[in-house]
Amino acid sequence: MAGNSQEHVEAYGYAARDTSGVLSPFKFSRRATGEDDVRFKVLYCGICHSDLSFIKNEWGVSQYPLVPGHEVVGEVTEVGTKVTKVNVGDKVGVGCLVGSCGDCGSCSSDLENYCPKMILTYNARYHDGSITYGGYSNEMVCSEHFIVRFPENMPLDKGAPLLCAGITVYSPMKYFGLDKPGMNIGIVGLGGLGHVAVKFAKAFGANVTVISTSARKEKEAKKQLGVDSFLVSVDAQKMQAAMGTLDGIIDTVSEVHPLVPLLMLLKPHGKLITVGLPSKPLELPVFPLISGRRMISGSSLGGLKETQEMIDFAAKNNITADVEVVPMDYVNTAMERLAKGDVKYRFVLDVGNSLKAV
Amino acid sequence: MAGNSQEHVEAYGYAARDTSGVLSPFKFSRRATGEDDVRFKVLYCGICHSDLSFIKNEWGVSQYPLVPGHEVVGEVTEVGTKVTKVNVGDKVGVGCLVGSCGDCGSCSSDLENYCPKMILTYNARYHDGSITYGGYSNEMVCSEHFIVRFPENMPLDKGAPLLCAGITVYSPMKYFGLDKPGMNIGIVGLGGLGHVAVKFAKAFGANVTVISTSARKEKEAKKQLGVDSFLVSVDAQKMQAAMGTLDGIIDTVSEVHPLVPLLMLLKPHGKLITVGLPSKPLELPVFPLISGRRMISGSSLGGLKETQEMIDFAAKNNITADVEVVPMDYVNTAMERLAKGDVKYRFVLDVGNSLKAV
Repeated sequence: MAGNSQEHVEAYGYAARDTSGVLSPFKFSRRATGEDDVRFKVLYCGICHSDLSFIKNEWGVSQYPLVPGHEVVGEVTEVGTKVTKVNVGDKVGVGCLVGSCGDCGSCSSDLENYCPKMILTYNARYHDGSITYGGYSNEMVCSEHFIVRFPENMPLDKGAPLLCAGITVYSPMKYFGLDKPGMNIGIVGLGGLGHVAVKFAKAFGANVTVISTSARKEKEAKKQLGVDSFLVSVDAQKMQAAMGTLDGIIDTVSEVHPLVPLLMLLKPHGKLITVGLPSKPLELPVFPLISGRRMISGSSLGGLKETQEMIDFAAKNNITADVEVVPMDYVNTAMERLAKGDVKYRFVLDVGNSLKAV
Repeated sequence: MAGNSQEHVEAYGYAARDTSGVLSPFKFSRRATGEDDVRFKVLYCGICHSDLSFIKNEWGVSQYPLVPGHEVVGEVTEVGTKVTKVNVGDKVGVGCLVGSCGDCGSCSSDLENYCPKMILTYNARYHDGSITYGGYSNEMVCSEHFIVRFPENMPLDKGAPLLCAGITVYSPMKYFGLDKPGMNIGIVGLGGLGHVAVKFAKAFGANVTVISTSARKEKEAKKQLGVDSFLVSVDAQKMQAAMGTLDGIIDTVSEVHPLVPLLMLLKPHGKLITVGLPSKPLELPVFPLISGRRMISGSSLGGLKETQEMIDFAAKNNITADVEVVPMDYVNTAMERLAKGDVKYRFVLDVGNSLKAV
């Protein structure tokens, strides 16, 4: 039975305490299960690159102690009296959002991810004034609306990263019409987001070209991910030969990088969608836009309805992330390796089996 | 009757001879009327800002002698044997294009303006190897396909600028869905393109905001063009207050200018379309794109089918350019004034009444 919403329940997890980003055991509390809330034991939590940015305060907005984690899956332990979506024992997930205003234009269009008052899963302030803490923790409590149901056949560990990496690339492919069979789709960067983008694009029936700075990823990309073409972005000759061939590009790179070579890969009326967030402005040459009515846009996460649709589509098409599952006390090493790009392609914390009570 | 296509006919007009851009009388020849050709006496020709760029070789591609002019209207004097679109005596126009490959993807989609082999009305090489000369001349001969029929009630002088300025702003409003009644549309820059963009946007039923560097244009914009709001782009307070209000923006500015203030005016999922061509790259901050799925694109001219549609729409809705009609020998003064932005809003050369035979 759900407790009084004024009560609080002890919780524990791992928090960063300062800009060193070092994570260590942390004790805190979570609200009791409200009437619309779902409480669940965390089983797995993906490590997203933005977790790394947040713990080191790279965007200048971090508040410590900070418990990261927004690719969270677990098993429901308690539901509020008004909850209808899930039952105790169900497998569920929480992505980057745990709240929004609920009645703006975005919210009423199932685009909570563009609500100006959206509440992030961690490092934000919830409706009740409390600080939000992420999934590097023993349990979570979350309004039913922001809960994603995990289909039976979706593995929890490999499915966790879909809650951020998956929806981040799925949503723009759908919105910008890059989900049509036979399209030529480019994916820039083959990391946590990129490798999942390849899988969705393949499932949509696209011919997929990966554009990467790293030639050593080619063999694996083709063999294991079924990538059709591989372009090393510094190979001017091959980039030239591929000019005007792509219908759309999903650019997952977060570092500052040149846009012209990417724009030139697009057909007329082609679309370049960036989902990475470089800290400095990029250089935008206008000629490639005008001469071919090419388009640049960005996209951030997805709404809850679309996130559920994405997970269901992934389950149906056997799409999961390629992950390295690590115990909780490996988290700092994982962060160091992630910073160097040394992971194929996503770390997932085995929270359920390895997080010790503080 | 149409002559042999190997024959040539003497013609005359005004040409620039070097990068000074000074225009002077020039004698040349045009092909005889081929079986698909329409020959017409030039009556009026608009002066586009790109004419100024071309005569001064600002884009580094000018070949002299150069006869500018791609907002050309006149009266048909001869038609080829296979011509069905117009008859002798009809009023017609030619815009920026006189040719294209005819069978690429763009051409077969009525998008000759994106054909990689499109042939510009001047400073280009025609199918037969000859140099194309524009409308600052006594007559033109043009393949029927690139001829626009001028509706009866469309004034020739005020209608001429629609062939470039008009279609350049009309096409992106249609393609990007910025033509829906009740939309909030921003127009950046109130010059030759901008003032026509305002008129089309009003005809589509939009609430129109002009964004300009020049406060002195406000009164006129509101009174004469019916602009609903006017923002001076350097007025940070008013720009701030208008944040997130626009569905789309047509940016007609050719100089390098900051994009962030414009992007911030857009609602989530709003669209910024640039039709000006700054010579250097702009700074593109990624955050406003990602945080609201905002989009930047460019657009160039329009296809022939759409250009006809635009002229017919303009005729039906009494849309014309605001012009200052000047005689041919005023052209160099007009260019000087245009360079200073001293025209409301388009010069049109009265070629028919003032061009003297060389």
